[in-house]
Amino acid sequence: MRTMHADTIIEARWVLPIVPQGVVLEDHALVLREGRIALVAPTAEVRADWTADDVVSLPNGLVMPGLVNLHSHAAMNLVRGLGADLPLMDWLTTKIWPAEGKLMSPEFVEEGSWLAGLEMASGGVTTTSDHYFFPDSAAKGLRRAGLRCAVSAFTIGFPSAWAKTDEEYLERALDILETYKSGGMVRATVAPHAPYTVSDATLARCAELSEKYDAPIHMHVHETAGEVADSIRDHGVRPLERLQRLGLVNDRLISVHSVHLNDADIAMLAAAGASTCHCPCSNLKLASGFSPIAKLLAAGVNVGIGTDGAASNDKLDMLGETRLAAMLAKAVAGDTTSATVHEMLYAATMGGAKALHWDAEIGSLEPGKAADVIAVDLSGVEALPVQDPAAQLLYAAGREAVTHTWVAGELIATQKQSRSFRGNISAESLQSVARKWQNML
Amino acid sequence: MRTMHADTIIEARWVLPIVPQGVVLEDHALVLREGRIALVAPTAEVRADWTADDVVSLPNGLVMPGLVNLHSHAAMNLVRGLGADLPLMDWLTTKIWPAEGKLMSPEFVEEGSWLAGLEMASGGVTTTSDHYFFPDSAAKGLRRAGLRCAVSAFTIGFPSAWAKTDEEYLERALDILETYKSGGMVRATVAPHAPYTVSDATLARCAELSEKYDAPIHMHVHETAGEVADSIRDHGVRPLERLQRLGLVNDRLISVHSVHLNDADIAMLAAAGASTCHCPCSNLKLASGFSPIAKLLAAGVNVGIGTDGAASNDKLDMLGETRLAAMLAKAVAGDTTSATVHEMLYAATMGGAKALHWDAEIGSLEPGKAADVIAVDLSGVEALPVQDPAAQLLYAAGREAVTHTWVAGELIATQKQSRSFRGNISAESLQSVARKWQNML
Repeated sequence: MRTMHADTIIEARWVLPIVPQGVVLEDHALVLREGRIALVAPTAEVRADWTADDVVSLPNGLVMPGLVNLHSHAAMNLVRGLGADLPLMDWLTTKIWPAEGKLMSPEFVEEGSWLAGLEMASGGVTTTSDHYFFPDSAAKGLRRAGLRCAVSAFTIGFPSAWAKTDEEYLERALDILETYKSGGMVRATVAPHAPYTVSDATLARCAELSEKYDAPIHMHVHETAGEVADSIRDHGVRPLERLQRLGLVNDRLISVHSVHLNDADIAMLAAAGASTCHCPCSNLKLASGFSPIAKLLAAGVNVGIGTDGAASNDKLDMLGETRLAAMLAKAVAGDTTSATVHEMLYAATMGGAKALHWDAEIGSLEPGKAADVIAVDLSGVEALPVQDPAAQLLYAAGREAVTHTWVAGELIATQKQSRSFRGNISAESLQSVARKWQNML
Repeated sequence: MRTMHADTIIEARWVLPIVPQGVVLEDHALVLREGRIALVAPTAEVRADWTADDVVSLPNGLVMPGLVNLHSHAAMNLVRGLGADLPLMDWLTTKIWPAEGKLMSPEFVEEGSWLAGLEMASGGVTTTSDHYFFPDSAAKGLRRAGLRCAVSAFTIGFPSAWAKTDEEYLERALDILETYKSGGMVRATVAPHAPYTVSDATLARCAELSEKYDAPIHMHVHETAGEVADSIRDHGVRPLERLQRLGLVNDRLISVHSVHLNDADIAMLAAAGASTCHCPCSNLKLASGFSPIAKLLAAGVNVGIGTDGAASNDKLDMLGETRLAAMLAKAVAGDTTSATVHEMLYAATMGGAKALHWDAEIGSLEPGKAADVIAVDLSGVEALPVQDPAAQLLYAAGREAVTHTWVAGELIATQKQSRSFRGNISAESLQSVARKWQNML
């Protein structure tokens, strides 16, 4: 066979392609060419057939698709740390909204989104679906950090520096949808803030825009018990039923949070082919409640994972978020077999990609897809011994173990941890002690 | 004033002494001498009065007491990763117990505890209260890593490589209590495994040993709903009531897990001056349930935090555990004002120290106490901008941000993260962007 030339070859101890689900390949390599995955094959075969400008060898590394953060407010990195432990409404009215009021501008959104993008990039996020004012500035900041992103054609029933009236929000939403309709590295979602902050008329208009542009609907839904009760009081129905009547519950809906769901709500989402975005840290910290993830998975609803913004989380850490999602789902269901390692790693990658209707391009390591790839080092003392790489990626390794993040074949972030211990112990000596006991099993 | 000489001076941007609670000192320094904290004072004053062999300057660092892991099974680091997603009994009977059966020996416990100790040390744990077979080997391994520790005078109603019969367990427990009774860097707890695995007669004997040696009682209590139901079936009372009758519910009790507590149980623990150890990751991952932390705190029960073992967690990450504890307590209570930042950081340090009756020596940065100190860097992109150092230590920084860990004045671990981003952005330039917006608030 003639030798072929690639841009990058990544040789890894383990490859977790996500599709097919549940598979961990050993000693495989990824061949990246022109921003895409050309091949996933045993390293020996790749070495025989390919050369590359750059060969990255990861003898202790696990390679997987980049994480898809299905719900962020990236610019809110700049208001991180404000108002811990306050009641929700005090937190919003005395801290977050005044801060946003003072700072809001295209520059604020661009620079905040850039910092958030760097935080996400070094922790293995390659795509984020953002939801905020000045979405074109968010796109600039996130692209400056190297991320792929979906930004929000945003509407809310309150005046802001971005728009004053429903009509103005919708005009700007239309601009955003037009700007990003051709795809590429930035796409747009139709993003009415929440059922309780957007009027029926505007929601109906959002449904039309979503259909016209074939754009996902990115919306906070059923986040709190109060929101559900208020909707019954004000509209006579639960928020999801109202959204259904207005034409928003379909396979383009990304129902963010979805904490307070009854069985009928779950059945409605499943029948519609809708997606949910689970943000467990935010739901816990804001005392919103517990999303029934095991029930949603069992009903066949597509589940993605999101970090929410740094004001309510305060980490844009998709690996940590997914770990918590898995653990919490087990406790909520009272069943350790719920929310398996492979289901949850799928949610954090393909789940998000499918919700964004971007799964033809991203979410798994399959030839032809974009080269959005991350590498995680499993040789640290936190992950030893490696008896189940996928489980230990999720449960033992943290985002600090992400060593490389590629988006469309470009290496956008690298990270390395150096440690020393009393007695100057080498990393290799720790690994060999762990391996000794592992080999006795 | 005459210049005095110290072993180490740590100059920090922020000092979180834990006692007094809720205080963050700015631009203060710690003076360490002969393994103890000699002084906590403004850096300018310390510079005027002191010299030292080693001056550690941390212009972006927060310094706080080392974290006290109130419940570990350190050697189980060597069985990490086994049996993810199995039902609890299958996990134990097909994975964990057979693995322990094959490997159990003094060498296994020492080496596993050593690896766990290194993991804990680099993540800011300075003391761990361990619970396992071959506790003298656990002490050796943990001390080799540099940690202070309490080890378990362990009893369980099943034969093991450590002991075969109740009598033999009690003999060995007595040996352990004698060995470590003089204090120093290793202490002992009386550690009956759990109410459902230890007989009345042995529990009564444990109560006597605890009293005689003034040693804490380190025991899994009310971890699962099944355990409570079984006790009512077999003993006619809930486990805590049985323990009370046998003399174990007093101010030496560390009731580990304490998931399934009714109001009477909480009142009993509070009246006795007992402590609980909260292990939220383990409780979620094993689908045990949700400990009522807000109620325990409100009742005045001393709460500490523990990681449990790597088999069920799988991170010995006290900062992450405490973060989850805080968030989860809010969601369980339905109240964002529960489990405040300062309450939870207290739990992770002084809470553990008090439970171990070791708070005269460790748990806070007070002159005269042991120099068990950690430093956390808050200049990474994950923590910017620093608007509330204590909140951001808990919620935004991870264990990877721990840069230095001192135990009794000895630097046992250091850690440093190096990052690069596309465009070769300097860390300073990120900090200045974040600071620009922070200064506008």
